Amino acid sequence: MDLWTLEQPGYDPQRGVTDGNRFLIANGYMGVRGTLLEAERQACPAVNLAGVYDRNGDKWREPVNAPRPRLFSLRFGGQEYVGATPREHVLRLSYRHGVFSRETDFGPFLLKEERIASLSEPHLLAERLSFTFREAGQAQVTLGLSTDIWDINGPHLFDFQQEAADTLLCRAVTGEKAIPVATAMALTWDGRGKKASALTAEGPAFTLCFDARPGETVTASLFMGVYTGLDDPAPAQQAQALCARAQSRGLDACFQDNGHAWEKVWARCQAELTGSDQEALSLHASQFYLNSIAPRHAENLSIPARGLSGQTYKGAIFWDSEIFLFPQFVYTQPQVARSLLRYRIETLPGALQKAAEYGFRGAFYPWESQEGGQEGCTDFNVVDVFTHRPVRTYFRDKQIHISADIAYALWQYYDITGDRSLLEEGGAEVILQCARFYLSRMSGHLDREELDLTDVIGPDEYHERVTNNAFTNRMARRCLESALALEAVFSDRPGFMAALKERLGYEADWARLPEAIRRLRGPWIRDGVLEQFDGYFDLEDCPLETVRSRLKDPREYWGGDHGVAGPTQIIKQADVIALMALLPEDFSDETVAKNFAYYEPRTEHGSSLSACMYALTACRIGALDKAWELFKKTASIDLVGGGKQWAGEIYIGGTHPAANGGAWMIAVLGFCGARMQRGELTLSPRLPSQVQAIRFALTTAEGPRQITVTREGWRSEPID
Amino acid sequence: MDLWTLEQPGYDPQRGVTDGNRFLIANGYMGVRGTLLEAERQACPAVNLAGVYDRNGDKWREPVNAPRPRLFSLRFGGQEYVGATPREHVLRLSYRHGVFSRETDFGPFLLKEERIASLSEPHLLAERLSFTFREAGQAQVTLGLSTDIWDINGPHLFDFQQEAADTLLCRAVTGEKAIPVATAMALTWDGRGKKASALTAEGPAFTLCFDARPGETVTASLFMGVYTGLDDPAPAQQAQALCARAQSRGLDACFQDNGHAWEKVWARCQAELTGSDQEALSLHASQFYLNSIAPRHAENLSIPARGLSGQTYKGAIFWDSEIFLFPQFVYTQPQVARSLLRYRIETLPGALQKAAEYGFRGAFYPWESQEGGQEGCTDFNVVDVFTHRPVRTYFRDKQIHISADIAYALWQYYDITGDRSLLEEGGAEVILQCARFYLSRMSGHLDREELDLTDVIGPDEYHERVTNNAFTNRMARRCLESALALEAVFSDRPGFMAALKERLGYEADWARLPEAIRRLRGPWIRDGVLEQFDGYFDLEDCPLETVRSRLKDPREYWGGDHGVAGPTQIIKQADVIALMALLPEDFSDETVAKNFAYYEPRTEHGSSLSACMYALTACRIGALDKAWELFKKTASIDLVGGGKQWAGEIYIGGTHPAANGGAWMIAVLGFCGARMQRGELTLSPRLPSQVQAIRFALTTAEGPRQITVTREGWRSEPID
Repeated sequence: MDLWTLEQPGYDPQRGVTDGNRFLIANGYMGVRGTLLEAERQACPAVNLAGVYDRNGDKWREPVNAPRPRLFSLRFGGQEYVGATPREHVLRLSYRHGVFSRETDFGPFLLKEERIASLSEPHLLAERLSFTFREAGQAQVTLGLSTDIWDINGPHLFDFQQEAADTLLCRAVTGEKAIPVATAMALTWDGRGKKASALTAEGPAFTLCFDARPGETVTASLFMGVYTGLDDPAPAQQAQALCARAQSRGLDACFQDNGHAWEKVWARCQAELTGSDQEALSLHASQFYLNSIAPRHAENLSIPARGLSGQTYKGAIFWDSEIFLFPQFVYTQPQVARSLLRYRIETLPGALQKAAEYGFRGAFYPWESQEGGQEGCTDFNVVDVFTHRPVRTYFRDKQIHISADIAYALWQYYDITGDRSLLEEGGAEVILQCARFYLSRMSGHLDREELDLTDVIGPDEYHERVTNNAFTNRMARRCLESALALEAVFSDRPGFMAALKERLGYEADWARLPEAIRRLRGPWIRDGVLEQFDGYFDLEDCPLETVRSRLKDPREYWGGDHGVAGPTQIIKQADVIALMALLPEDFSDETVAKNFAYYEPRTEHGSSLSACMYALTACRIGALDKAWELFKKTASIDLVGGGKQWAGEIYIGGTHPAANGGAWMIAVLGFCGARMQRGELTLSPRLPSQVQAIRFALTTAEGPRQITVTREGWRSEPID
Repeated sequence: MDLWTLEQPGYDPQRGVTDGNRFLIANGYMGVRGTLLEAERQACPAVNLAGVYDRNGDKWREPVNAPRPRLFSLRFGGQEYVGATPREHVLRLSYRHGVFSRETDFGPFLLKEERIASLSEPHLLAERLSFTFREAGQAQVTLGLSTDIWDINGPHLFDFQQEAADTLLCRAVTGEKAIPVATAMALTWDGRGKKASALTAEGPAFTLCFDARPGETVTASLFMGVYTGLDDPAPAQQAQALCARAQSRGLDACFQDNGHAWEKVWARCQAELTGSDQEALSLHASQFYLNSIAPRHAENLSIPARGLSGQTYKGAIFWDSEIFLFPQFVYTQPQVARSLLRYRIETLPGALQKAAEYGFRGAFYPWESQEGGQEGCTDFNVVDVFTHRPVRTYFRDKQIHISADIAYALWQYYDITGDRSLLEEGGAEVILQCARFYLSRMSGHLDREELDLTDVIGPDEYHERVTNNAFTNRMARRCLESALALEAVFSDRPGFMAALKERLGYEADWARLPEAIRRLRGPWIRDGVLEQFDGYFDLEDCPLETVRSRLKDPREYWGGDHGVAGPTQIIKQADVIALMALLPEDFSDETVAKNFAYYEPRTEHGSSLSACMYALTACRIGALDKAWELFKKTASIDLVGGGKQWAGEIYIGGTHPAANGGAWMIAVLGFCGARMQRGELTLSPRLPSQVQAIRFALTTAEGPRQITVTREGWRSEPID
């Protein structure tokens, strides 16, 4: 069994959308959906750009898809083969070097396609296309840049300018901010015949005409460059120049460069397990999906919740980044973890503005953060399946734990690496502003000591507008504690905190911190179980299947007052358990075990963020079979193309970076019990019986290390 | 035109439910729906009992319907006429004395029915039934007590014991509390033939067999007595004894007693207008519907929101009683007003318990109050028309203005009559406990002066879970002010308040009152318009018709996050304007005019509580044509059988006491500008051009008076 390759034989045009996700390749700058080169718009093909957003009219803001390479026409022996049903067909994704490939047998000839989004050159998309003929005949191949772009809330590109010469060029600008987007394409081939270029109705294209001989293979190399005005003031020139450079270097060299870049990444982050081939493959897959979208080309980008697989969730950054993706990166590639957090530091103004918009002070980070920290979430985030009307949801205004999650990750970066530079470079300011937000958000009564965080949504989004969500309150309190603890971090630089507080006018807030920490309501506990929020235990307590049976439409949204879960104790995802996974030192093993036993059967796991939190706590309490089951589910999610596809009438499919990060967490933090503090690693392995060994790389204070954990023990070796 | 009679010619069996409301007769003890004597259960016939509630299983608690009189069979010349379609048919309700009558021409004979729910003897229902024959033939009439009872959430009566002798008797007990319910029936007739009694499948019955002659009229008199275990320990004996007494006194005398009782009531409360016959009739009608359900037989009963017309809204007491019904009674029949408020004083324990249930102190009065102040409202008060699932609504837990409304009415009683006895007899305690509830309910932030009432529903129920509803905040503040003002009311009895505060442990709360009054957020005002709640002005501002056009089902509930009105500025009913009607001295004419102009076009008037508040403020600002239009709508609501029939899948039809009370308010307080303070009346008439004069009775410090307001002026005369 090849533990590094996803392979799917058979041709099924209905599978386009999920294939697009499963066979996605990406390089942090762009994601190229795993659709066929000849795919039409209906198959949802896309070259999805990281960090470039646009709004059309009053539709949702979302990331921009660039023009894409497309095989417009493929004629042989007088017949058109684009759209024809092949005799045989197979798709492959090699996770090792991120190579998409397909082999299609049309009868008279075989078509082979190999594609990379170069990890060494983020603006380069390269493809090898080869035809092997069984029969003689005249062939005519037209391929180029398609401007027929699939968008969910588009179109986003306007004022197209196209050129077809030695190089194809396609220039356009986005609608909202007039950001130029340029794509160029060059083509090299080894065929004997005519190569021409021309503008077609769908975009500029090359046409190759040749007489094929039986047994002969004709190969074309495609080089596509993508630049936007955010990258360079002259994106078209850059895209053209890149094509020329790549073309002169040659396709094999481009593939090699990409391969070397991937080897370097794997050397730093690879985690692999032995004992189950299927799960070994799953872990490779999930690590590939996660690491292919890491923003290595930038210092201040984060990762959208559906990666670069499309426009789902508006291409926005969620708490997924800090809570689910950040751990793998901070342990293995701290520079990527820095980029995720620098994105938050640089978007602080957006968070300050959002807090002010809601009448609060400090930093209220967006639920769905786009460029500049702009909130991408609307007040109407679900469409009712019965009335087709938008439904007022409260993700935007009530999911206030996001600020605490960011403060938590900033503190974690310091705590894990021992490097306080991020705190110095704005991180401390973010923590103070998040703490200020909670100070202004919490409320109390004239006749009570306790302070509340009322009207919030916790991680379990099915229960909207609840009071004193255990996760939110504790994470907010941790944020207040981290603010106070900054004093000790900078005890050797007494001027630092004083100057920061002075600049932020923070005196009064600083004085309030201890009182707020003392008075903020902690969770109510019954028989050792934390109540998820005030009144949760009073909700209907019925089995998950009872709740599911009340659905009238499979696409119904489960949450809110109209949803089937809202009035019950059934929750979407880990909430109390997520808190226990994030702050393990707060809770005894016995408490974790009791809460796991209570909440797990009441959890739908309707989010890809759920299983890994349960798995981490399952490891802690020794429920290793359960942890293994949840690991399998988490690690395989994008390999098998699972996950919910709909929330009401909104498409929410794509890859699941949070689950990919979660799989790494379960394997390394859970099964191996890895914990790093100030760069020092400790391990307390608890391998499930199904696992013989886990080997993983990480970066400690001593530099990159390779750790091997077996049933007998563990060893640590340096990596060159 | 008869200004005192509702008449409806024509036979239409589909009209049963609305006829049942429009032709309702009642006497405060029971309501008898205006269905035909022979009506089957499908026509929704009922003898609805005031203040007797029952729950079946986990269905909604609702008032109990007693066994009813029914004409089981009517055979003549070998043919059955129950269920037959008549040649001609007319229904009448004489509002003067509350007499329901019908005349039905079956061809071979005429059937005439006259019915009263005696206002002089609350346990007595009496009917005259007469047959006038055009042909000779054998007649057989079977009539008696039907145990086939229509209920919405029933059945409620069990363990039936039936007797058929000289008197029919039907005894049963309610399911939840085993309250005995007894009905007895006696019959006198002038026919020549056989009278027998027997038990039938549907209940005990008399059968009359006689040979009819052409031209002959045969008359039967029915006397039905109704008692429950709440009235007497031996209800069956009482019901039988009442039948015997009434029978010996005779039907004419019973009708006369009832007529005299009505004359006495009209002498105290009648308001009539000249200038428009149609509206004169409407005003009589609405006064009849209101006064027929006044609890004159009891000292501690209030009036359900749909009167005694059935089980809609669980037969519960709403704020309607204090805000819409109370004014007419306190001006005209203070002893009834006392009963409404004594109900609240006696149900204070239920309100204390409800506050505690939600974690607050003081008195949180039920939104839908049943006996003992038990909350009848459930967490799921609407059924979704698309999924048929109950929807979580917030009427029960968030509509906190009810306590302030009750405190307001208690203060009004003192302010209008000058009689402080109600305050002494528990009213002051209720005001203090309501104030205590707001003291514990309001919340604030560490860094702000203002205190908020968060997460409430105001009078406009379409917007759920809002913060700082202008009506709620101001009425709550008025409640706090009234609590403080009690000190002055009892300044001549300094020990009274001291003892009360001592008994309630009120020291700390008393000390908080001034601070809370000062800090509680007042409404935000933009261009003179009060914002209905925080953020209301940010909602979509579109015409009512746009919102209506978004409905996918005419029965859809408009409110909440799924409703068409929720995300818009369209409101269900007067909210800011209701506040201005209740506290006119708080607002300038200019402010009222601006708010009227803003809110009226944005009001659906989806509640019968809406139009009269707009009409009262329209009178104030001189918009008399608008006031007249709203008066017509308000006064005629039950005459024409209007009003919403559905909220989601829940039937909400019935009579509209609040609108009935509202019609009186518009005529007397609005058009005549009547205002009484400590028993002293002032008038500032502003008659619409359509009105020549209004004459009304009321009770001032000088005793009962008759006031006549004309375009020239007004005069006041004593009533004997």
